[in-house]
Amino acid sequence: MSGEPTDCIFCQIVAGEIPATKVYEDDDVLAFLDIRPVSKGHTLVMPKAHFSDIFDAPPELLARIAQRIPLIAKAVQKAVDAEGLNIYQNNAAAAGQVVLHLHYHIIPRHAKDGALAPWSHVNYDEGEAQRTAERIAEHLDT
Amino acid sequence: MSGEPTDCIFCQIVAGEIPATKVYEDDDVLAFLDIRPVSKGHTLVMPKAHFSDIFDAPPELLARIAQRIPLIAKAVQKAVDAEGLNIYQNNAAAAGQVVLHLHYHIIPRHAKDGALAPWSHVNYDEGEAQRTAERIAEHLDT
Repeated sequence: MSGEPTDCIFCQIVAGEIPATKVYEDDDVLAFLDIRPVSKGHTLVMPKAHFSDIFDAPPELLARIAQRIPLIAKAVQKAVDAEGLNIYQNNAAAAGQVVLHLHYHIIPRHAKDGALAPWSHVNYDEGEAQRTAERIAEHLDT
Repeated sequence: MSGEPTDCIFCQIVAGEIPATKVYEDDDVLAFLDIRPVSKGHTLVMPKAHFSDIFDAPPELLARIAQRIPLIAKAVQKAVDAEGLNIYQNNAAAAGQVVLHLHYHIIPRHAKDGALAPWSHVNYDEGEAQRTAERIAEHLDT
């Protein structure tokens, strides 16, 4: 755990100092409704302990969260009668992480709801994909 | 495991019947570059065994994948010098899942790259958030 910053609003929610619309809680994990929902039922799942992102958190904790997400996500799906769910997790401000306390978004979706924009795409130059893959594989060893 | 459909292109990649630009492989997991990348280095991580989504896969397998994603994501981040990473996982066609074999997107991001559109938001009516949370909590018990 990399400290519990007093200015972390998710730590303050865990401590009961800021209200949240909770949907699930156990020793490790808290889930509550996102106050800026992409769709109704949009739920955040996070460890109670403060870790900034998946690189900061111990792998065993990530494993425990991963095992609980389907349970919570299935309840979200049933509650709002969703046809699909995005499980989105952002690391660092450059990736859109607003609160720097590790959390997972469960976003209920309905066919053609337009709740999230379609992804745009880039192209690799000739040989660039292979070179990129080789660089990734090299960094796995370090 | 819910069968290994012969028309699943990810199963065919695992079997070596379709080429892929692989970056990581172990007994359980295969990672390779997405052929329609949102950004350069966009990597897919998936179990070798066929499961359609997080509801189909056993929790223990989800836990093993969750423990490996930071390892692969860190290598992706270093390889393309990313400032952030989205870890995105879609369940069902309504949520944008194109290949119905459980997979996780690792999407490298740079500040203000515009690679993914900002999220739009909806509002709850008076009392609706609380009622939604209660419905979710009820479905956790079933």
